Amino acid sequence: MVTTRKPLRAAIIGLGRLGERHARHLVNKIQGVKLVAACALDSNQLEWAKNELGVETTYTNYKDMIDTENIDAIFIVAPTPFHPEMTIYAMNAGLNVFCEKPLGLDFNEVDEMAKVIKSHPNQIFQSGFMRRYDDSYRYAKKIVDNGDIGKIIYMRGYGIDPISGMESFTKFATEADSGGIFVDMNIHDIDLIRWFTGQDPVQAYGLTSNIAAPQLADIGEFETGVAQLKMSDGVIATLIGGRHAAHGNQVELEVMGSNGWVRIGEHPDLNRVTVFNDQGVVRPSLQSFGERFDTAFTDEVQDFVNNVIVGKQPEVTVDDGIKALKIAKACQQSANIGKLVDIQL
Amino acid sequence: MVTTRKPLRAAIIGLGRLGERHARHLVNKIQGVKLVAACALDSNQLEWAKNELGVETTYTNYKDMIDTENIDAIFIVAPTPFHPEMTIYAMNAGLNVFCEKPLGLDFNEVDEMAKVIKSHPNQIFQSGFMRRYDDSYRYAKKIVDNGDIGKIIYMRGYGIDPISGMESFTKFATEADSGGIFVDMNIHDIDLIRWFTGQDPVQAYGLTSNIAAPQLADIGEFETGVAQLKMSDGVIATLIGGRHAAHGNQVELEVMGSNGWVRIGEHPDLNRVTVFNDQGVVRPSLQSFGERFDTAFTDEVQDFVNNVIVGKQPEVTVDDGIKALKIAKACQQSANIGKLVDIQL
Amino acid sequence: MVTTRKPLRAAIIGLGRLGERHARHLVNKIQGVKLVAACALDSNQLEWAKNELGVETTYTNYKDMIDTENIDAIFIVAPTPFHPEMTIYAMNAGLNVFCEKPLGLDFNEVDEMAKVIKSHPNQIFQSGFMRRYDDSYRYAKKIVDNGDIGKIIYMRGYGIDPISGMESFTKFATEADSGGIFVDMNIHDIDLIRWFTGQDPVQAYGLTSNIAAPQLADIGEFETGVAQLKMSDGVIATLIGGRHAAHGNQVELEVMGSNGWVRIGEHPDLNRVTVFNDQGVVRPSLQSFGERFDTAFTDEVQDFVNNVIVGKQPEVTVDDGIKALKIAKACQQSANIGKLVDIQL
Amino acid sequence: MVTTRKPLRAAIIGLGRLGERHARHLVNKIQGVKLVAACALDSNQLEWAKNELGVETTYTNYKDMIDTENIDAIFIVAPTPFHPEMTIYAMNAGLNVFCEKPLGLDFNEVDEMAKVIKSHPNQIFQSGFMRRYDDSYRYAKKIVDNGDIGKIIYMRGYGIDPISGMESFTKFATEADSGGIFVDMNIHDIDLIRWFTGQDPVQAYGLTSNIAAPQLADIGEFETGVAQLKMSDGVIATLIGGRHAAHGNQVELEVMGSNGWVRIGEHPDLNRVTVFNDQGVVRPSLQSFGERFDTAFTDEVQDFVNNVIVGKQPEVTVDDGIKALKIAKACQQSANIGKLVDIQL
Repeated sequence: MVTTRKPLRAAIIGLGRLGERHARHLVNKIQGVKLVAACALDSNQLEWAKNELGVETTYTNYKDMIDTENIDAIFIVAPTPFHPEMTIYAMNAGLNVFCEKPLGLDFNEVDEMAKVIKSHPNQIFQSGFMRRYDDSYRYAKKIVDNGDIGKIIYMRGYGIDPISGMESFTKFATEADSGGIFVDMNIHDIDLIRWFTGQDPVQAYGLTSNIAAPQLADIGEFETGVAQLKMSDGVIATLIGGRHAAHGNQVELEVMGSNGWVRIGEHPDLNRVTVFNDQGVVRPSLQSFGERFDTAFTDEVQDFVNNVIVGKQPEVTVDDGIKALKIAKACQQSANIGKLVDIQL
Repeated sequence: MVTTRKPLRAAIIGLGRLGERHARHLVNKIQGVKLVAACALDSNQLEWAKNELGVETTYTNYKDMIDTENIDAIFIVAPTPFHPEMTIYAMNAGLNVFCEKPLGLDFNEVDEMAKVIKSHPNQIFQSGFMRRYDDSYRYAKKIVDNGDIGKIIYMRGYGIDPISGMESFTKFATEADSGGIFVDMNIHDIDLIRWFTGQDPVQAYGLTSNIAAPQLADIGEFETGVAQLKMSDGVIATLIGGRHAAHGNQVELEVMGSNGWVRIGEHPDLNRVTVFNDQGVVRPSLQSFGERFDTAFTDEVQDFVNNVIVGKQPEVTVDDGIKALKIAKACQQSANIGKLVDIQL
Repeated sequence: MVTTRKPLRAAIIGLGRLGERHARHLVNKIQGVKLVAACALDSNQLEWAKNELGVETTYTNYKDMIDTENIDAIFIVAPTPFHPEMTIYAMNAGLNVFCEKPLGLDFNEVDEMAKVIKSHPNQIFQSGFMRRYDDSYRYAKKIVDNGDIGKIIYMRGYGIDPISGMESFTKFATEADSGGIFVDMNIHDIDLIRWFTGQDPVQAYGLTSNIAAPQLADIGEFETGVAQLKMSDGVIATLIGGRHAAHGNQVELEVMGSNGWVRIGEHPDLNRVTVFNDQGVVRPSLQSFGERFDTAFTDEVQDFVNNVIVGKQPEVTVDDGIKALKIAKACQQSANIGKLVDIQL
Repeated sequence: MVTTRKPLRAAIIGLGRLGERHARHLVNKIQGVKLVAACALDSNQLEWAKNELGVETTYTNYKDMIDTENIDAIFIVAPTPFHPEMTIYAMNAGLNVFCEKPLGLDFNEVDEMAKVIKSHPNQIFQSGFMRRYDDSYRYAKKIVDNGDIGKIIYMRGYGIDPISGMESFTKFATEADSGGIFVDMNIHDIDLIRWFTGQDPVQAYGLTSNIAAPQLADIGEFETGVAQLKMSDGVIATLIGGRHAAHGNQVELEVMGSNGWVRIGEHPDLNRVTVFNDQGVVRPSLQSFGERFDTAFTDEVQDFVNNVIVGKQPEVTVDDGIKALKIAKACQQSANIGKLVDIQL
């Protein structure tokens, strides 16, 4: 719908892989918003934002940006440990906040963050669970909600990165705390399992390994994590996170119902091309979640902008983010201590 | 790249199924352009353009629009028979023209259209062969151009609409000349076969039938058309056009090479969901070319806008459009007369 | 069902690739028959039959074998040009005859063969259209016969050998007349198209090429053949024969109906394994029709044996074989003369 | 290879669904064996064996059969609880024994059975882990053993019956002890996981549910069971057993390696037919493990016969059977007590 309203004025913190994507979308694809400022530590990234995107002002200190700029909304795409303090500062400055997942890594900080968010009920806070915006998940959700597959019995979520990303992950995880394999790779599936079932997990059995990447032990990381969850009303779930896929980016979710199943992303098809070659019949695979979820990333940001314009809080709340984080941490804890872990949300 | 340049001012003729899509894209997705005027016969469509898209002025007479508005470019999405006169009028008015495929139905008109276009070499003329912009076709083209599948031996193109569209087609074809099954359904594949092989067909054997829709005989249409083409340098091709697909919109292209094959769109997957139900393992199908090619439609229009901005003629020329039309017509003629038809381009 | 009847006594002529398969099946899998003699020119093959299969007597002259042995039935798996004379000799000797497809290559000989067969109505004559025994074709036939996909509009049959077989084909075609690409590769699909539609083709447009194997020109062969057929009651069909497939043995049949389609053998899956590797998601392919149709080969021979035991002529008659041969030859003739060919059956 | 040796004389105990299959194979497909006697409680089954298979003598008491008949080998396809006593009786009678899986349900009985088997090292004892004979598993095993997918990280095995079988299962489980969901549905996958990895599980976390079939609670059964296993050398595994599949018989095994993955039976394709109908693109599914593994059932029995003839013990030992049983029981125990269970083999 057309409004004569001026576009929202927005700024972004972080221009890494995902920050760059959001910035490009904000300039080229999202309606009703103008990206006026960007903050990053890397001067090349800031140059890019100025020259390629036409962002007017750039900063290396996010507080300066928030203090100086006349903005309505801020996009936080900085490393996870900074999410809480940035969100708190921005909320207290009266801004609407879009913050990438996960909310943070330290529960005290995240709890404080949630308290501040809830104390500003008229400002929109939205976190980056973009999969809820993806056409395939939404289609599957509708099938489930229609009762077409009966009652949910079991769910299985795979978040497995291509092995080609190992080097960049190692660099990233050496410099910052990734949160561990379950936080880093399974938090979306945890959110989706809660979304599909309407149930929370009550018990977790996590196991981890470094068979595919022994070198990760040096930086306290695990290449693969597997967890089995008992949900509050009887559903059972399996989560697998990993970084070893030879073929590409395997983001697969299965919902087993009493009258049918759905699988989303059974194969990470790159496009609609099938190749017949000396290996057999081949479907090339996607290599990155960015390619996979480009439209969902756009749609979630558009939704945030629309929410800000009409003053509507999003479906996914900060509490959803906290619960997903606690569940991922419980899986990790179980693996660490070698015992079942009861989950209190 | 950022320019401080003002957006192109554009108008559109036609707000039917495809016109509406282009208009939405121009307003919401395409960078560097502003849709300032729209022309249509249906007042509801014009209301929609005003209210939903914010188009400033609307017309029912396209000449008035061209004469009145201060515009740089025009998008012609009217019924095919009007393409030539509209293009001629717009070119003579100094406009850059984007015209949907096919160029027209009458060769005299189309030849005149081409003459006018060529007499304005500084204005951009681009026709709507959007499949050349589709990721999957481009990926396949690259595989072929790399020599990964050797030399092309054979190509097969299916353009088969879902049977659910039969009613609207019958209405459309009753009111206007569709051009016949090959023109209406295979012109894109004809263009793609020329694009992939670099060869032109020299002989066609066309056959048509109304087994699936005998009622089409009443309006001089055929439901299915099949043609075998002999290409100038030995490639063989099969075209199938139809309107009877029970499952959805089958737009499939096969390229058989001496060292491998590719198939694009072997199944018209709706999304990434696989359903396991009492029928077996099911992939739901796309129902419309609009869904299938939404991104390609956006990208071709963005490319046109970019071409206009930098003054670059597109890869696909008016002659490509004329050749595709002649080939489609030759297939139809062969079916009509029951003989092989030699093709002169 | 159990009978106390003695097994049929059978002999085989030809122990090449397919003859070896039939011989093994007769000894190991087929009930109610005993393979007592074998005839071949290659002494290694005869040794193998003696030592591995326990065949009692071997011959290098088929007439000697027929004259000498006390047998009920004979399996003719010799090169095609010998099929007529061998069948005639065996029928005249009072034997039941199973003869591999095609019946022959010379129409005069084949007509004489048919005359002799028909003059012995109490002896079983069965030709090797084994695909009619394959589970997948039978399943598809049932779907079609049930009316589940409406009326047939179009059929497409691919018979394309893996390129790995090129050397052995070249050797074979240098020594003997293959009958040409359509006879050698498409005769099964021709039979299936007649079987599925109940219609005969009335016109053919054939095209051939050697793009993938120019060297075949030296022995008067074509690597690829494509033909479009007009069937007697409006169905249209496309046949493709070839020898260039990089991935494996592509034996694919499509039946397009007014209310649904079926494809048999869309991909030549080797087994139930899917491999995820650096190429993407891969299904390995079958390399030979022998693997693909092993069960069908067994079932057709078992059916022949059962037919002999109960004195029942098979569904597929010698006339079906002659018609398939004439249609294949018409496709070849069309390609040779560059014109449409009318088919008289 | 041909031998002049007389066929083995064999008898069978049990002519239910699987017993009937083995009996038919023994008569019609297996070389080197003659089925001379059968034992069952159901007189119709015995009539069938006599009339259809030509089995000479039938019994209702297996001991009578063993005492009376002059036989070399016996096939035990009776309900699981009888396996130990029958095996013990047959081994002590000097017979070679083929016994269906699982070995039994009571560990004391199974231990006694193993002791007796080991005390007759010159008699062949083989249990029915037929999946090791299936082409697809063998192909996958070869890929893994070649190192083509690197080191194994994770395995996932699904054994989920079609819901159409619920009624017959309920009847069966009411009359006899099924062993529970993990014993009944996952014992093959347990064997395969040990076979592929060469590792034994050391810890299990099992969960069960009756969401899809609450009525099973009345007979002490669970419809679905899920277990996560920690293997001795770091591999992680997930087992799912169930009886609710709407589409068919899902027997799927995934092997995730550090350099690639394989999935066996990702979809339970019925045959090579793809159907395009108003649901989309559909692959019909297999409904029974009998169809799925018919060839494997034949091949394992042929292997047993060959082993008996040459006096070679099979690759799978009675200890493999006992371990698989213990692991399945541990999964069940974990679900029963709601705790992790350490596995001692």
